[in-house]
Amino acid sequence: MAEPGATSRLRLSGLCFLLQTFTILLFAAFVRFSPESGPGLCSQPLNCSRRIQDWGSQPPRFRDAHVQTLLGFGFLVAFLSRYGPGSAAISILVVAFAIQWALLLQGFLHQFRNGKIHLGAQSMVRADFGAAAALISTGAVLGRVNPVQTLLLTLLGVTLFTLNEYTLLTLLGVSDSGGSVTVHAFGAYFGLLVSRLLRQPHGEQQEEQQDTGHQPDVFVVVGTISLWIFWPGFTSATTAHGSAEPWAVLNTYLSMAASTMATFVLSPVLYEQSTLRMVQIQDATVAAVAVMGMAGEMLVTPFGALIAGFLAGLIPPLGFRFLTPFLRSRLKIQDTCGVHNVHGLPGVLGALLGTLLAALATADAYGGRLEPVFPQLARGSRTRTGQALLQLSALLLSLLLAALGGCLTGAVLRMKGLRSAAANRYLQGTEVDEEGCERGKEPGTSTLV
Amino acid sequence: MAEPGATSRLRLSGLCFLLQTFTILLFAAFVRFSPESGPGLCSQPLNCSRRIQDWGSQPPRFRDAHVQTLLGFGFLVAFLSRYGPGSAAISILVVAFAIQWALLLQGFLHQFRNGKIHLGAQSMVRADFGAAAALISTGAVLGRVNPVQTLLLTLLGVTLFTLNEYTLLTLLGVSDSGGSVTVHAFGAYFGLLVSRLLRQPHGEQQEEQQDTGHQPDVFVVVGTISLWIFWPGFTSATTAHGSAEPWAVLNTYLSMAASTMATFVLSPVLYEQSTLRMVQIQDATVAAVAVMGMAGEMLVTPFGALIAGFLAGLIPPLGFRFLTPFLRSRLKIQDTCGVHNVHGLPGVLGALLGTLLAALATADAYGGRLEPVFPQLARGSRTRTGQALLQLSALLLSLLLAALGGCLTGAVLRMKGLRSAAANRYLQGTEVDEEGCERGKEPGTSTLV
Amino acid sequence: MAEPGATSRLRLSGLCFLLQTFTILLFAAFVRFSPESGPGLCSQPLNCSRRIQDWGSQPPRFRDAHVQTLLGFGFLVAFLSRYGPGSAAISILVVAFAIQWALLLQGFLHQFRNGKIHLGAQSMVRADFGAAAALISTGAVLGRVNPVQTLLLTLLGVTLFTLNEYTLLTLLGVSDSGGSVTVHAFGAYFGLLVSRLLRQPHGEQQEEQQDTGHQPDVFVVVGTISLWIFWPGFTSATTAHGSAEPWAVLNTYLSMAASTMATFVLSPVLYEQSTLRMVQIQDATVAAVAVMGMAGEMLVTPFGALIAGFLAGLIPPLGFRFLTPFLRSRLKIQDTCGVHNVHGLPGVLGALLGTLLAALATADAYGGRLEPVFPQLARGSRTRTGQALLQLSALLLSLLLAALGGCLTGAVLRMKGLRSAAANRYLQGTEVDEEGCERGKEPGTSTLV
Repeated sequence: MAEPGATSRLRLSGLCFLLQTFTILLFAAFVRFSPESGPGLCSQPLNCSRRIQDWGSQPPRFRDAHVQTLLGFGFLVAFLSRYGPGSAAISILVVAFAIQWALLLQGFLHQFRNGKIHLGAQSMVRADFGAAAALISTGAVLGRVNPVQTLLLTLLGVTLFTLNEYTLLTLLGVSDSGGSVTVHAFGAYFGLLVSRLLRQPHGEQQEEQQDTGHQPDVFVVVGTISLWIFWPGFTSATTAHGSAEPWAVLNTYLSMAASTMATFVLSPVLYEQSTLRMVQIQDATVAAVAVMGMAGEMLVTPFGALIAGFLAGLIPPLGFRFLTPFLRSRLKIQDTCGVHNVHGLPGVLGALLGTLLAALATADAYGGRLEPVFPQLARGSRTRTGQALLQLSALLLSLLLAALGGCLTGAVLRMKGLRSAAANRYLQGTEVDEEGCERGKEPGTSTLV
Repeated sequence: MAEPGATSRLRLSGLCFLLQTFTILLFAAFVRFSPESGPGLCSQPLNCSRRIQDWGSQPPRFRDAHVQTLLGFGFLVAFLSRYGPGSAAISILVVAFAIQWALLLQGFLHQFRNGKIHLGAQSMVRADFGAAAALISTGAVLGRVNPVQTLLLTLLGVTLFTLNEYTLLTLLGVSDSGGSVTVHAFGAYFGLLVSRLLRQPHGEQQEEQQDTGHQPDVFVVVGTISLWIFWPGFTSATTAHGSAEPWAVLNTYLSMAASTMATFVLSPVLYEQSTLRMVQIQDATVAAVAVMGMAGEMLVTPFGALIAGFLAGLIPPLGFRFLTPFLRSRLKIQDTCGVHNVHGLPGVLGALLGTLLAALATADAYGGRLEPVFPQLARGSRTRTGQALLQLSALLLSLLLAALGGCLTGAVLRMKGLRSAAANRYLQGTEVDEEGCERGKEPGTSTLV
Repeated sequence: MAEPGATSRLRLSGLCFLLQTFTILLFAAFVRFSPESGPGLCSQPLNCSRRIQDWGSQPPRFRDAHVQTLLGFGFLVAFLSRYGPGSAAISILVVAFAIQWALLLQGFLHQFRNGKIHLGAQSMVRADFGAAAALISTGAVLGRVNPVQTLLLTLLGVTLFTLNEYTLLTLLGVSDSGGSVTVHAFGAYFGLLVSRLLRQPHGEQQEEQQDTGHQPDVFVVVGTISLWIFWPGFTSATTAHGSAEPWAVLNTYLSMAASTMATFVLSPVLYEQSTLRMVQIQDATVAAVAVMGMAGEMLVTPFGALIAGFLAGLIPPLGFRFLTPFLRSRLKIQDTCGVHNVHGLPGVLGALLGTLLAALATADAYGGRLEPVFPQLARGSRTRTGQALLQLSALLLSLLLAALGGCLTGAVLRMKGLRSAAANRYLQGTEVDEEGCERGKEPGTSTLV
């Protein structure tokens, strides 16, 4: 602990300094504020139905973007709280770096004109999505990587996320405003593959995650409530404003309500425990949002959101009961915070639902909303079947990229110089053990790996 | 615990499944998104002074409603936190079901046209009010009902709340935008009557609630702060937009500030304790909002809000000291979380204040605001005295309905099949004992009834 | 405890009653709602670029002000959480009184016309700033003053803050929208001087603040996250709307991100500890905002915010390591919550940065934004050098007033009748000891002075 601890602390310090200096230099060379975000823009009704996909050209409805940046950070709370107060320090480090890095990369792809990136409030909203994906990936390996590895995971994860998002949303014209595929599914499977490569042989002796009888955790309660408050507004941040947005918000609320009910339906049957834990409700809430990421702006009827939310709410209890042990014992994949059950599978379900809805989308049902939700479809440059196939291929492409990228990243993180058990100890919260992301544990009682 | 526990768990699971399926079927049959919430609406200055009472016809100012939905969930946090982290699971279940049920019932009464309910963001704001009333009622019986009973209480409570609200606000034209009568007083007295009917003979041996020397409770602090952040904005959600709204917001802030001062004035005199507990400040804050529910948009002068808030802040300390023991020993009403002191009496005071203000309302003092606050008065179809009598009769009608409905609901919940002590144990947080809603207790130390 | 406790409790009760009654009388005599905040104002694009400095005449863009009031209370959370849950009761008392008092004083200076103060939502935003300054000052003496002294400190502190703010912003035309000088530096040095005068001879035996190995504090995590969510929006509350606002928000976010990285760079080098404490990240976040208070709306290039944030993030670790012990041993200044490192020095750095930027401000770089940020400069009635000298003199004037006012206030608080050790015990949270504002301590374990 004495010497290796000092070494690893200094290594973290040095890496942070290096990355921050590099980022500052890139910002100095390339990033400027968007000149268009001037006074003239604050009340242009014409912009109301503009699609965010064109956000590079002109930030639409600046005031809303400002509120949504606010919501975006509330949204990141949800992830922080899922991983317990102990891991808050490392999570905030991930967010602090991921946002800067995502601003740069997304800027190069979307807003690069005349040799400069033009930054606006909407850029910050997009960067929040990148940070969210990085946090999801971190959740899969939490407690088994040191801070230096976590930072590198963030660096590579955000890079791949940005490439994937650019390919799908801009090049292919896929609709995935809330990130069922690009954020939830991609983040989860990327993290799981990294986790697979980082597997340590002595990590097999874990028992079941669902132990009972713990104290109610204040932090989980606060996090769950933050989800209800901030998330529906945020996932609609990148939908077509003024038109499909309300659908996405209402659908997400309905999905969360039904998902909570589903947990109360299934958990008593699956578990013999005497208490329902708040963390189970939180899992259901997250799953409900993941499933609404793509379909939120497409669902024309509210009961569809209730059904989708109910199904999504069934996934985490079933997953923790049957799938996580299978993953661990057969596929040798440890999933510290259960991101597969909470983000991965619900994201895939959301993508399938989005595919179905795209295949059914007619001008009759959508009316004036068809244009903002499916622009190519409305313009006649694409058929319903074509759009549906694209939505499906977006899922497959994301999974492929997540798998390849996860293997690559895992291989990098396994490099000899980066592994050091003692480094784990530096940050509060990397001390979470592998048994489940402090799921219901007393804070501070977890032991060091 | 073994067998009855399993039975009651399965009964909860079954009831949740039944209610959710029933709700989904009703949504599928009747609920559609409001077609009017399209792009054209996002910037209509004409709508600025439209009254929400007509919200069925056309959702006014959609973007604001969206922010207020957000605030609404922050507002529900306040209630959650009043009942301690231990009861968060059951509270979230109440919210998840109450919102869906309120959307349906309010939709049938307000937005039913051509055989369909037309849902908009404003509907979600109204549903939040229903969920709030259900949470208040739950607070009176918390710890003495099992989850199945709580769900039935929510079902019946939201139904009666919706009927009462429709009668008062729409049929009679009463002004009660923040719910002094419809939410606070109705919810509290409904819960108290249910509590009276559920009284168990062995529940007499309670001692005083106000025990001293406990740890500061993080959860209470977070909840109190949430009140300050989210509540003033939310209680103005249904006032006439663009005109009376700022009054309601500012009046509520001022009321909360004065109420906090009042607690610091009275508590040291009443209690010999060496510390002022955060929960007392929280009680004062809630009372300050309850008293501003009706009067918030009517008060023309800021010092009125200070006086009303100061008086409201005196109610909880006095109530817990003198009234709660009286209720318990003489009227045999147990009030787990003290909803009578915090919601009931301040709500009644708010209604009396609203009556007084309606009797004094003149076009001179209100100017252009008379029309949005008292539309019938402004149009000359009603006199000031008439409006004042209506405001008062709204209180009496609500109390009557709460009493009758509470007795009925209590009788239903007492049915033999529903009572099971073991079921209490299933949910974290129904374990709160009867001595005061975890008021200042360590979480988790309370024993099972 | 018995008799002196009772006396001091009654004295607090009496003072609260007196102050509240006095405030109500002043409100009754002078304060009315602003008549202009009527329906006609809610959609005036002309107001978009109006400067808040003229907020007395007509509240610009009322709806935004409403959201920012909301943010303002989120902003106060940050301060509450910095001082630990134990001090929440006394902090809320400070806020409740400071807001009323600031509304009155700022009203007399800014909105006094025809013998009446015209109150609007924007007034509440300004009052939040006053309450923030009072909370910062409180942080310097927390645990060594009783509630009566704290109330008097608030009374005098808010009075001086309002005078200082009026002189700088309105009379001299200094740009300090986020309060680097008026809030952070003024509040910190005012509190430090009070602390110096209140020094007790037996208070020397403190050891170092930075002790290691404590539990992660849920409250600190919640507070830090609240900072990220609410603060950037709020510090832009008083910038010129619709134009410079986005710059201020984005600059603040970038500053916070870089500052967090800086803590991860420096803390491992400075401290031999095995964990990075959340409270250090919180300190870095607060410092990042303090440094952006003045410069936030002036910085034309995002990388400037990154550099400033990085430098600000270095101040708290260095300050707690080297400066706080020096202040304590040599200058006999105890700084309970380290406000010098977190608010004072970063505020001074922010003022110097603002001076530099004012000296460099050209119409070319600012374009249409020069007018809202530096109105006199744009109109040609002031040179760049003149504006820069004014920004610098604002810092010096504030420090002078803080020093004089702090000595005066300290002398008042030292009066014999006000000092009573037993009174400390009345409020939860004044029990924090002098060793560091519950920095990383278990709540409740601190002993009474």
